[in-house]
Amino acid sequence: MRATVMYGAGDVRVETVPDARLVEPTDAVVRVTRAGICGSDLWPYKSMLPSPTGRRMGHEFIGVIEAVGDDVRTLKPGQLVIAPFLISDGTCVFCREGLQTSCVHVARYGSDGVDGGQGEAVRVPYADGTLVVLPVGEDDALMPSLLTLTDVMSTGHHAAVSAGVRPGTVAAVVGDGAVGLCGVIAARRCGAEQIILLGRHPDRIALGKAFGATDVVSERGDEAVEQVHQLTGGFGAHSVLECVGLQDSVLTALNIVRPGGAVGRVGVPQEDSIPVAPTFWKNATVGGGPAPARAYIPQLLPDVLGGRIEPGRVFDRVVSLDEVPDGYRAMNDREAIKVLIQY
Amino acid sequence: MRATVMYGAGDVRVETVPDARLVEPTDAVVRVTRAGICGSDLWPYKSMLPSPTGRRMGHEFIGVIEAVGDDVRTLKPGQLVIAPFLISDGTCVFCREGLQTSCVHVARYGSDGVDGGQGEAVRVPYADGTLVVLPVGEDDALMPSLLTLTDVMSTGHHAAVSAGVRPGTVAAVVGDGAVGLCGVIAARRCGAEQIILLGRHPDRIALGKAFGATDVVSERGDEAVEQVHQLTGGFGAHSVLECVGLQDSVLTALNIVRPGGAVGRVGVPQEDSIPVAPTFWKNATVGGGPAPARAYIPQLLPDVLGGRIEPGRVFDRVVSLDEVPDGYRAMNDREAIKVLIQY
Repeated sequence: MRATVMYGAGDVRVETVPDARLVEPTDAVVRVTRAGICGSDLWPYKSMLPSPTGRRMGHEFIGVIEAVGDDVRTLKPGQLVIAPFLISDGTCVFCREGLQTSCVHVARYGSDGVDGGQGEAVRVPYADGTLVVLPVGEDDALMPSLLTLTDVMSTGHHAAVSAGVRPGTVAAVVGDGAVGLCGVIAARRCGAEQIILLGRHPDRIALGKAFGATDVVSERGDEAVEQVHQLTGGFGAHSVLECVGLQDSVLTALNIVRPGGAVGRVGVPQEDSIPVAPTFWKNATVGGGPAPARAYIPQLLPDVLGGRIEPGRVFDRVVSLDEVPDGYRAMNDREAIKVLIQY
Repeated sequence: MRATVMYGAGDVRVETVPDARLVEPTDAVVRVTRAGICGSDLWPYKSMLPSPTGRRMGHEFIGVIEAVGDDVRTLKPGQLVIAPFLISDGTCVFCREGLQTSCVHVARYGSDGVDGGQGEAVRVPYADGTLVVLPVGEDDALMPSLLTLTDVMSTGHHAAVSAGVRPGTVAAVVGDGAVGLCGVIAARRCGAEQIILLGRHPDRIALGKAFGATDVVSERGDEAVEQVHQLTGGFGAHSVLECVGLQDSVLTALNIVRPGGAVGRVGVPQEDSIPVAPTFWKNATVGGGPAPARAYIPQLLPDVLGGRIEPGRVFDRVVSLDEVPDGYRAMNDREAIKVLIQY
């Protein structure tokens, strides 16, 4: 089959790889119908050292089950399923608590003998625990929005949850990438009254406003902090959704949160440590991490199916599998917010 | 009047200072009947640079109102009152939310023209907002426990609240000082089923067990982390109460919290930054800060008055005002857990 392999920074290829097949009795093989390129795929795209064997890519996909192992109980061939970006067994203590990202059997696509999502098919371990059946056809018009539930919309939602967004409060979203834009959707969905989007790209800001941002701050650093305080009566935001992960954006997030408020960080950390003083003296909380998309998909699905949220609008480019390398380039050059792979 | 003044590391004196008197119409003057030496008083005791003018000390006290300004509405001379360790106006948005430590008029005892608590009397600004009337006599047997509500018991409670202690969960308390011991009381009061105290001083550990600690870990660093994991089925503690503030103890706290759990830190931070990786990937939250004792005093008071908690047991030495310098020495030398000043 054909699949995406990264060999180093800027070096993404679509190649023939061994066919996906059942290995464990709890596996399913899924034929991919839609996949996404994730902002986190760009970190290795910018910095990966050359690798002779390469690394299989992709962890956002929807597809049709082709085969299931003997121990799979809840799934059968022909079903359309959505895959959260991590594999989880569905039965451990953390899965039962809804924190599947800490599953005792957690695994990633594209490593440990598991296929990546940016290919024709994927072997999915712990299929019963991992996959969620979708009640629509594989070419449903809602596909882009459904695909965001694999990662980016669930991650934006996790930022809002971790930042404790509640009705009537002030939320600030740091970053106007696809996760930040989904963070705006999530903040609005959780009832925030004022939603301040920190970003500087006109097309993304326009989408953020369509999603519910009430204010935009395009300054950076101290000036951004000053602007947010001016917009919030001098107090800062109750909830700050940190959707970038760079040192500067995290520092901005810590400095714009209101006393007693919370920062929910979901951008993959590119910094080693964070300063203590900005949050300690004002009793602000810092939380977040990888989003338990497996828990959030059933929660968010009704709002997507009902058309109440349209996170699929973050996809502004569609490519075929063979065009995936150009999709990476377009996202990295900021020509595209987010790229959808249509099979 | 006589009051405690610190002139540098290890140099604490009891001297004659100007009498406390009303300055603003919202002030009260309180004649101190009991005061405490705080663990945080030991930080300058260890490190303060020599000062020719000195620094007035003390922020934990109970006393009798001697005079009130013209605008004081809820207090009158003769009432016994307890003072939280910070001054707050009682009316601003943060005071109304119960986060009086972020009051827009927040002030400290011992600075900005306000007397310290380790003296014969104190001018208390924003008396209506700051002070709480006690329904007992000034020599009540409960005085030691009541005095802890000014700071140390409220701080232990804040650690438990910030760490999200709930019924049936596992709490770990890092530090066996007076705050940590009060953290044990608070964790038990909030319903923790297993309470692991990390400490290494036999007398303190004994008191911690009396307060409800179910397990004790006396190792440090990686060995402590290993021990806590062994005691918790390999998972760590749902709630970690960080009651020290040193880099090593904070790192231990981050490493023993369970995925999805929370660290509540209340020890005054002696480090500038904390690492991101230990908490991000497991979705643990880090919160805490200075305790809003003004909010907690009314919540904790019934349990003290009813004898259900006895935090006053952390006071294991009583001194007179003139003996305060020796009280500092005893606490610094770990001869005493905590010193009560009786007038």
